[in-house]
Amino acid sequence: MYFPQFIPYSFIEKEASHVEGFSPELALVTVGGGKELEEKLVVRPTSETAHFLPDFYQWANVTRWEMRTKPFIRTLEFLWQEGHTAHATLEEAEKEAMQMIDVYTKFAYEEAAIPVIPGRKSRVETFAGADKTYTIEAMMGDRKALQAGTSHNLGQNFSRAFSTQFADENGQRQHVWQTSWAISTRFVGGIIMTHGDDAGLMLPPRLASVQVVIVPIWKKANEKNEVLDAALSIKDILHTAGIKVKLDDSDQRTPGWKFNFWEMKGVPLRIEIGPRDVSSRSVVVSRRDIPGKPGKVFGISMEPSVLVPYVKEKLDEIQLSLLNKAIAFRDSNIVDVTSYDELKEAISQGKWARGPWVGSDEDELKIKEETGATIRCFPFEQPQGPKTCLMTGSPAEEVAIFAKSY
Amino acid sequence: MYFPQFIPYSFIEKEASHVEGFSPELALVTVGGGKELEEKLVVRPTSETAHFLPDFYQWANVTRWEMRTKPFIRTLEFLWQEGHTAHATLEEAEKEAMQMIDVYTKFAYEEAAIPVIPGRKSRVETFAGADKTYTIEAMMGDRKALQAGTSHNLGQNFSRAFSTQFADENGQRQHVWQTSWAISTRFVGGIIMTHGDDAGLMLPPRLASVQVVIVPIWKKANEKNEVLDAALSIKDILHTAGIKVKLDDSDQRTPGWKFNFWEMKGVPLRIEIGPRDVSSRSVVVSRRDIPGKPGKVFGISMEPSVLVPYVKEKLDEIQLSLLNKAIAFRDSNIVDVTSYDELKEAISQGKWARGPWVGSDEDELKIKEETGATIRCFPFEQPQGPKTCLMTGSPAEEVAIFAKSY
Repeated sequence: MYFPQFIPYSFIEKEASHVEGFSPELALVTVGGGKELEEKLVVRPTSETAHFLPDFYQWANVTRWEMRTKPFIRTLEFLWQEGHTAHATLEEAEKEAMQMIDVYTKFAYEEAAIPVIPGRKSRVETFAGADKTYTIEAMMGDRKALQAGTSHNLGQNFSRAFSTQFADENGQRQHVWQTSWAISTRFVGGIIMTHGDDAGLMLPPRLASVQVVIVPIWKKANEKNEVLDAALSIKDILHTAGIKVKLDDSDQRTPGWKFNFWEMKGVPLRIEIGPRDVSSRSVVVSRRDIPGKPGKVFGISMEPSVLVPYVKEKLDEIQLSLLNKAIAFRDSNIVDVTSYDELKEAISQGKWARGPWVGSDEDELKIKEETGATIRCFPFEQPQGPKTCLMTGSPAEEVAIFAKSY
Repeated sequence: MYFPQFIPYSFIEKEASHVEGFSPELALVTVGGGKELEEKLVVRPTSETAHFLPDFYQWANVTRWEMRTKPFIRTLEFLWQEGHTAHATLEEAEKEAMQMIDVYTKFAYEEAAIPVIPGRKSRVETFAGADKTYTIEAMMGDRKALQAGTSHNLGQNFSRAFSTQFADENGQRQHVWQTSWAISTRFVGGIIMTHGDDAGLMLPPRLASVQVVIVPIWKKANEKNEVLDAALSIKDILHTAGIKVKLDDSDQRTPGWKFNFWEMKGVPLRIEIGPRDVSSRSVVVSRRDIPGKPGKVFGISMEPSVLVPYVKEKLDEIQLSLLNKAIAFRDSNIVDVTSYDELKEAISQGKWARGPWVGSDEDELKIKEETGATIRCFPFEQPQGPKTCLMTGSPAEEVAIFAKSY
C-alpha cells in the first residue's frame, strides 16, 4: 500500500492535539497547477490522518519543518517505514504497540548492536494524538540520547475524530482502537554515532553491505598476477559461503590508502594478501574494531575449510563485541540519582540520570529549562523496592531516565 | 542515494524549456513551519534540477498537478524509479539513453508480456529540457496508447544551466552530457489494461506475487481433513520448487466464490483438489487466461516429479500466450496510412495509424486538434523503401505512429 503525501489541512485539524503538536512543523502546499488552492495541503509529516485502511504499512518520505538540521538525525525531509493498525479493543491495541517496540528493540540489539533502552514516554513527550508512546532510547558516542524508534497506542483519538467504526459481535458500531509506529533514516545516524570513531564508520557485520574487504599487496610487476589470482579465489570462496565480500584490486591506490579508505567506510574485516602470503597459502586478517597490531592475525590458511569458519566466527565476534562495548559505555554513563542536585550534577557531566519520578509536567519542563535534559523514558526494566521522587519527595512507583538528546 | 523532494523555485527556472514545460504541473510549498517562505519550494516533479551527482538513481515519489486523474495512469503523486547519468561526450550520453530504453523494452516484453513499440518522440512530444526523448508505447485493451517509460538525452542543456563541468584529458573544463530515464507506477496500470478482462486482473506469471492458488473442495466434514492435508502437501511441493503458491483454506467461502475471487486477482494458475482427486492422487489445473472448460485439465498427478514440471511449463506457456495475444491485438489494430484522410479514418475507428511523416510542429498540432491523436513515436523499426509524407507529400525518411493516448 501507498498513501498520498498531500493531506488536506482539514484532515490534520480533526484530531485537536495532533494538529497542535504538528502545526509548527508543517510544510504547506498553497499553489497547485499555477492556481491558489482553496484548501491548503499539508506535506505528510506522518500518516495518521492520511489513510483510511484498518491496517497499513509503507516506506515513505515525510516532511517536518526544521530550522536546525543535522544529517540523518534531524532533516526537513526523511525516509521511514510507518505502520498503522486498528483493533477491536484497547487491550489488543496495547499489545500491538508493545509488540512493535519489542521488534524495534530486538532489531537494535541484534542487528545494529545498539543497546537501546525501551520504555514509556512521559506525558510531555508523548506523540501528539497518542494516549501512550513507547520509545527506544540510544546513547550516542557523545552521550546524547537519540530517540531511535517509537510505537504509539492512539486509543480512540483518531477513530473518534474520523468516525472510524466497526460492527462488533453484537452488531453494535464501535470506534476502533489504533496504533502507529515507525523507525526512520535517523536510525542510520544512530548506527554511525554509536559505533563510529575518529577513523570513520564502524558498521556492525550484520548490517554491513561489505563485511570483508580484500586488499592485495604487491611491489614488483611480476608479483601482481599471482597475488591477484589468490585474492580472486579468496573472494570466490567467501562469496560462495554467503559472505558479503569486496576485492579492491585497483592499481591507482596504495595498500595503505586502501586500508584507510575501507576503515573509514566501516568494513568490519580486512583480508590482506601479499606475495609471501601466497607462498605460504595464508592471509592476514584485520579487525576494524581493534585498531593496529592487536586486531591483526597472521597466517590464516586460505583453505576454505579453515578460512570460511574463521571469517564467520570473527564477524560474529565483532558483532558481539560492538554490542558489549556499547553496553559498557552506556552503563558507565548512567548515574542513579535521588535528588534534583544529583540529577543536575550528572547532566552537567554529560551523563544520563536515572531516578524516581512522580513530578508534574511543570516540574519536567523546569528540568528541561534549567538543565537541557528531558525525560527520555520510564524504562520497562525498573529497580525493585520503595522509591521517593527526586523532585517532590513523594512516594514514586517508577524511575525515569533524564538526558540531553538530539 | 536519495535527493530531497523540495526544489528551490530558482533551480527549476535555470533551464528555460524545463520550467516552461513543467510550470503548469507544479505544486508549490509557500509556507514552512508557520512562516511564509522567502523562496517558494517546488515539490519534485522530476529530479533533473535537484541533484548534484554525476550519476544517481532513486526510487521516489514525484508530484505533478493533474486535474483529471486516473488510477495508476495519471495521478497527482506517483512513485517511480529515476536515473540520471553524466558523460564526457554526446556519443556516450546517446548510447546510455538508448541502452536504457532497451532495458525498459526488454522488461516490458519479457516480464510484463507487453509488446511495447520503442521509438523516438517528435519535437512536440520531447521532454521539457531534453534534446531527444525515447519512449516505449504500449497499446491498452481499449486501444489507447500508453507512454510506458522514457529515456532522455539531455545534451548539455542542464549542465550549461547549472555549470556542471569536468576536466577532460587535456585539463580543459567541459560541460557534461547528461541523460535521465524513468518508469513509474503507471506501468502497473499498463499491465492491468493490457491483460485484464471482464473477470478482473490477469497477471503475467513472471510478475505475479501469487502464481498458483490452491482451492481445496469438500462437502462433508469427514472429507475436509484429507483434502486439506493433500492441499497442504501440494503447497509445500510447489513452494519448495520456487513457485509462488497460496493455499486458500478458509472455510468462510465456497469454492465457487474463491474461484471468482482469485480470478479477479489475476492469479495465473488455479489448482483444485477434492475428495475424488485425493483418491486418485491427482489434481485439476485451470488457466486464468483461458476461461471455462477449455482452460481446465483433469487428472494431473500429485507426484512432485510430474506436478512441478507441469506447473512450471504451464506458467511459461501463459507468459508466452499473454505476450502473443497482446502482439496479435496490437498488430491487428495498427493501420498503415498514406494520407491524412486514411489517418483520420484509422483514428476514428479507434486504431493506431502508421505513416511517413516530415510534417511541421504545426501540422502535428493540427492533427491533435482535429483527431485527438498525437505522434506516439518514430519507431526504431522502420519499413524499407521510399516514403512520401502523408501530410505534405514531401519525401519522408521515417514513418511515425499516431494514436490517441492516456
